[in-house]
Amino acid sequence: MNRRAFIQAAASFAAAPSIIRSASRPPNIVLILADDLGYGDLGCYGSRIRTPNLDRMASEGALFRHFSVASPVCSPSRASILTGRYPVRTGVPTVLTPQDTDGLAASETTIASALKTAGYKTMCSGKWHLGSTPAFLPTKRGFDEFYGMPCSNDQSPTTVLHNTDVVETRATLETLTQRYTEQAVNFIRRSSDSPFFLYLAHTAPHVPLAASPAFRGKSSLGIYGDVVQELDWSVGQVMNELQANGLDDNTLVLFTSDNGPWFQGSAGSLRGRKGDTFEGGVREPFIARFPGRIPAGQNLEAFASALDILPTITNLAGVSTPPAVDGVDIWPMLTKQTAQVERPPFLYFDGWNLQCARVDQWKLHLARYSTPAWSPVPIQGRVNLPLLCPELYNLQADPGEDYDCSADNKDVVEDIRARVQAMLPSFPGPVMSAWNATQSSGVYPNASGALPVPLN
Amino acid sequence: MNRRAFIQAAASFAAAPSIIRSASRPPNIVLILADDLGYGDLGCYGSRIRTPNLDRMASEGALFRHFSVASPVCSPSRASILTGRYPVRTGVPTVLTPQDTDGLAASETTIASALKTAGYKTMCSGKWHLGSTPAFLPTKRGFDEFYGMPCSNDQSPTTVLHNTDVVETRATLETLTQRYTEQAVNFIRRSSDSPFFLYLAHTAPHVPLAASPAFRGKSSLGIYGDVVQELDWSVGQVMNELQANGLDDNTLVLFTSDNGPWFQGSAGSLRGRKGDTFEGGVREPFIARFPGRIPAGQNLEAFASALDILPTITNLAGVSTPPAVDGVDIWPMLTKQTAQVERPPFLYFDGWNLQCARVDQWKLHLARYSTPAWSPVPIQGRVNLPLLCPELYNLQADPGEDYDCSADNKDVVEDIRARVQAMLPSFPGPVMSAWNATQSSGVYPNASGALPVPLN
Repeated sequence: MNRRAFIQAAASFAAAPSIIRSASRPPNIVLILADDLGYGDLGCYGSRIRTPNLDRMASEGALFRHFSVASPVCSPSRASILTGRYPVRTGVPTVLTPQDTDGLAASETTIASALKTAGYKTMCSGKWHLGSTPAFLPTKRGFDEFYGMPCSNDQSPTTVLHNTDVVETRATLETLTQRYTEQAVNFIRRSSDSPFFLYLAHTAPHVPLAASPAFRGKSSLGIYGDVVQELDWSVGQVMNELQANGLDDNTLVLFTSDNGPWFQGSAGSLRGRKGDTFEGGVREPFIARFPGRIPAGQNLEAFASALDILPTITNLAGVSTPPAVDGVDIWPMLTKQTAQVERPPFLYFDGWNLQCARVDQWKLHLARYSTPAWSPVPIQGRVNLPLLCPELYNLQADPGEDYDCSADNKDVVEDIRARVQAMLPSFPGPVMSAWNATQSSGVYPNASGALPVPLN
Repeated sequence: MNRRAFIQAAASFAAAPSIIRSASRPPNIVLILADDLGYGDLGCYGSRIRTPNLDRMASEGALFRHFSVASPVCSPSRASILTGRYPVRTGVPTVLTPQDTDGLAASETTIASALKTAGYKTMCSGKWHLGSTPAFLPTKRGFDEFYGMPCSNDQSPTTVLHNTDVVETRATLETLTQRYTEQAVNFIRRSSDSPFFLYLAHTAPHVPLAASPAFRGKSSLGIYGDVVQELDWSVGQVMNELQANGLDDNTLVLFTSDNGPWFQGSAGSLRGRKGDTFEGGVREPFIARFPGRIPAGQNLEAFASALDILPTITNLAGVSTPPAVDGVDIWPMLTKQTAQVERPPFLYFDGWNLQCARVDQWKLHLARYSTPAWSPVPIQGRVNLPLLCPELYNLQADPGEDYDCSADNKDVVEDIRARVQAMLPSFPGPVMSAWNATQSSGVYPNASGALPVPLN
């Protein structure tokens, strides 16, 4: 199909009502994922790091201000992005190591395997981290092709694979972003004869931080800033390639990250970082662009989550959405048909531990780890403890989760708590076990200062 | 002296050159201290909490954007505010408990005892926390009068004293702000016949949080917001009393807090909270007002610290500054004679542990506690560890300390490190012991991701 044909097709999509939106050739999907990128690390989210390509992508599409991933750490978050389900359901509740012999459960359907049923070409370029033994690699999970690292760049060995073949035994980290980008661009170039799904999962800006020589020292904000600028460059390369191949108007491009910033990077004015169920650990940039379909210049305050990516894509592509998906289709929000969509409470887990729940602007904290910087009780490891009284935050009025207003909104607290309790039995056994263990293992001091025991 | 006489006196002060600024009757000093108030908790610092009185105080004087206390926890910070010296020199390197029988070293000179030599009346209304046995109470440390709590409101017993007499065995926390304010206002009313020093050290907004009925539920930002609004009310009461007694133009009023927010409260966009030597633990609101002397509407970006309060006050009052003070007189900054003053590197301790140093816009991190929310190494207690490589942050370009730029500024790193090393021998022995122990106890992962050992 030449470029003119694409433009005509795109025009017909734009004019078509939502219900028959995938009647003709389904759109291409490009999902670009960063690694440990903070909510405050992009220009369009207030950073001083220059990210002109992502800023432009946002101005041409929709930028979300309240988008949450389903885990504050890597593997579980990725599992939920690719399946639309809470990590505890996917066989990947916690971070995988190179020694683990399991990974994303065979019973799970990924975006890639769902799209294969509609004839999509699929590629994963970048970090996988959902199982590094042969049965769990991307090529077994719906991807025609894989180029990248099966694990994380801070986990030894830092092997690079092409499909299942080792092409590098110890990754040259400085050129990874360039190589992932080259692979992605080549895939786009090769795939214009059929719909395709590109999953470009950068290792940047996860530590160890490494930029190519062209970007080193360019940001004036240290190596982290350099790495983010190279990541932004990569997004620009992908966009250029889509445009050069006449695919710009029939491709949905999504950008986000797996979890908040770790040692470096900015969560903006949000509280917490990677590993926290405070917003800084889980709220991420999320940008969606589809010229002619998604109206440009949207700055959305409504809640959306990483669980929503799969059902939105499957509906858009006209393929079956797997059963028991936890997310919802947010296409009506993206296309301005509605300001928000109905959804159950959104739950915040770390590992098996359920810590928070969100309904609209309200976030209820139920449990927390025993690691405040300066603790009133001796720190003995990292224990998940129930809060003496749940804390309630109004994320519209108080984005930093700084002011517990539970005492002034007891009905909201009780409503959310009851809905969370009702959801618990739908999860695998260890969730309830962790929940019960939490209830009996001690108690975390309440935000308003009611301590379980006097300090002396 | 009636009000007109005061206005004339104030006018003559304003016209006098700095060098003879205390030739006539020295000014009154009011130092208002909050407890665990965050950098982002006041309206004039960007909060949604309404603080009209502090906002007005700032608009009529100078507001500092880079003011640091000398400890991220209570007792040591207060020791340094009252002595102008690093906490490790004062006998109070760490937080005191009601069981401790010592306190601020007898050899230390407080602001109050220095001002007594010039005939000042002095009062401490509020929280002391620098020694609760008779020899260490405020009335032995330069204060004519004391009304308040010898310890913290989360430490049992929550006794309230008047001078050395117990007036309440278990404090009614809800009325503390009202009572401290009433005592302060009465002191001002009683003291117009001589220069005075009022140290109004609120327990608010330290946990347990408690507001009086008039303020409960008024902020729409929970109990913490209510408590801060009552604190702001208190500042307004003091200002009103000064004005009503014709003292407004001969009184320096200072406002700050001892350290950053703990379980609740906002550090704005700064990283860290109470207990951290990241800015969120130590950077505080600091407002100085002296109509006719300090030009109104100043928004200062230059660095200043809690160590500077004593030498600024003693110079202003024309009394001797105690020897070996660590701070500098910032009066030339307050009066717009200079944009900044010369000073040695500012050091950030927690307990005996030296963790960071600041020179101009640069902050060098040398050591850190082993408590990231999600740690690459097992957390076993809270250990002070040297950073594998020191991290350097440009606090002007990167206020969140998110982007280590040490690799791009190696000369700055080496210069600051050498100056810190040269300062170490001037401190008590345990500082060097802690430093040496740190150097041999392990290592904290570097910000750019160079880990001491592979993760697996």
